[in-house]
Amino acid sequence: MPGIGSKTALRLVLHLLNQDKEDVLRFSGAIQKLREEIQFCSVCQNISDTTICTICSNPKRNQAIICVVEDTRDVMAIENTGQFQGLYHVLGGLISPMEGIGPQDLNMESLRLRLVDQEPKELIFALSATMEGDTTLFYLFKKFKELAPVITTLAKGIAFGGELEYVDEVTLGRSLLTRIPYESSLPK
Amino acid sequence: MPGIGSKTALRLVLHLLNQDKEDVLRFSGAIQKLREEIQFCSVCQNISDTTICTICSNPKRNQAIICVVEDTRDVMAIENTGQFQGLYHVLGGLISPMEGIGPQDLNMESLRLRLVDQEPKELIFALSATMEGDTTLFYLFKKFKELAPVITTLAKGIAFGGELEYVDEVTLGRSLLTRIPYESSLPK
Repeated sequence: MPGIGSKTALRLVLHLLNQDKEDVLRFSGAIQKLREEIQFCSVCQNISDTTICTICSNPKRNQAIICVVEDTRDVMAIENTGQFQGLYHVLGGLISPMEGIGPQDLNMESLRLRLVDQEPKELIFALSATMEGDTTLFYLFKKFKELAPVITTLAKGIAFGGELEYVDEVTLGRSLLTRIPYESSLPK
Repeated sequence: MPGIGSKTALRLVLHLLNQDKEDVLRFSGAIQKLREEIQFCSVCQNISDTTICTICSNPKRNQAIICVVEDTRDVMAIENTGQFQGLYHVLGGLISPMEGIGPQDLNMESLRLRLVDQEPKELIFALSATMEGDTTLFYLFKKFKELAPVITTLAKGIAFGGELEYVDEVTLGRSLLTRIPYESSLPK
């Protein structure tokens, strides 16, 4: 298991041996349930303990905006910001020739079906600003540009709240190149 | 001196005592020269050892773009990116009511005179995305909007090259709110 070597494993085993038999049984039952009951939402492919996840089945969410992300951690990160009320679509990875991950390995067909079926007003690509993210973004845009009236992506540049002198060179340089008129930089 | 306590000071003094007399004299002379000869460029207010700094006096720099920054460190950071060929104007600080720094404490009058005199095509505000930076930006824009045809500011958002899951919540939330059409996110 990641981050657990032989010494830590021994410590955990000795700890389990010191517990009540019932507690250990409950613990092993929870792990079994974790693997058996956690499934992927049939709509957005996020992990869920129901066929359709709580976000997809929430009628208060804006059904007209779908935000495409790499994995569940990104859904959690965006939910934590409290700034997004639409729905998600989890790709399950990014295109990466280095790691042998191609478009066919990602949840793209389910996204295509959703776009055809739900006809959302806007598709947001919220992917990492890495080479894999940019490659995937380019592929997705080519594939889906006919299926969504508006396709947007995250703003990129210097971090909000950040001091200029701690910004990395690439971001500072690109932020200068992609500078924007002052008026349009103000929050709406 | 910042970062040098009594133990480090003692170590440095003992090191100086071990050096040749001439070397120590040269060192003390350099410090004297530092304070006496370093001055501020009469055009951009950056530190310089000549009346007009090497950037302002370089005919290859684009005279039509002035990039306004807080201090010399920002000039160095932007120069290191290699992405900017225009001129600078160093404010010498940011407006900060908490620290008692007002507009009158910054190099604003020299900026106004430059704008009237040189009539640049574009004024870029490259300030930190902090409260002080935003306050100063707002003040500068109000004061100088009539004097420059185009006023721009750095792009803000998630860092270039960054993984989404390591982005701070504020930046991720604001990057979502200020999302941009995919086509306009591509480098020109």
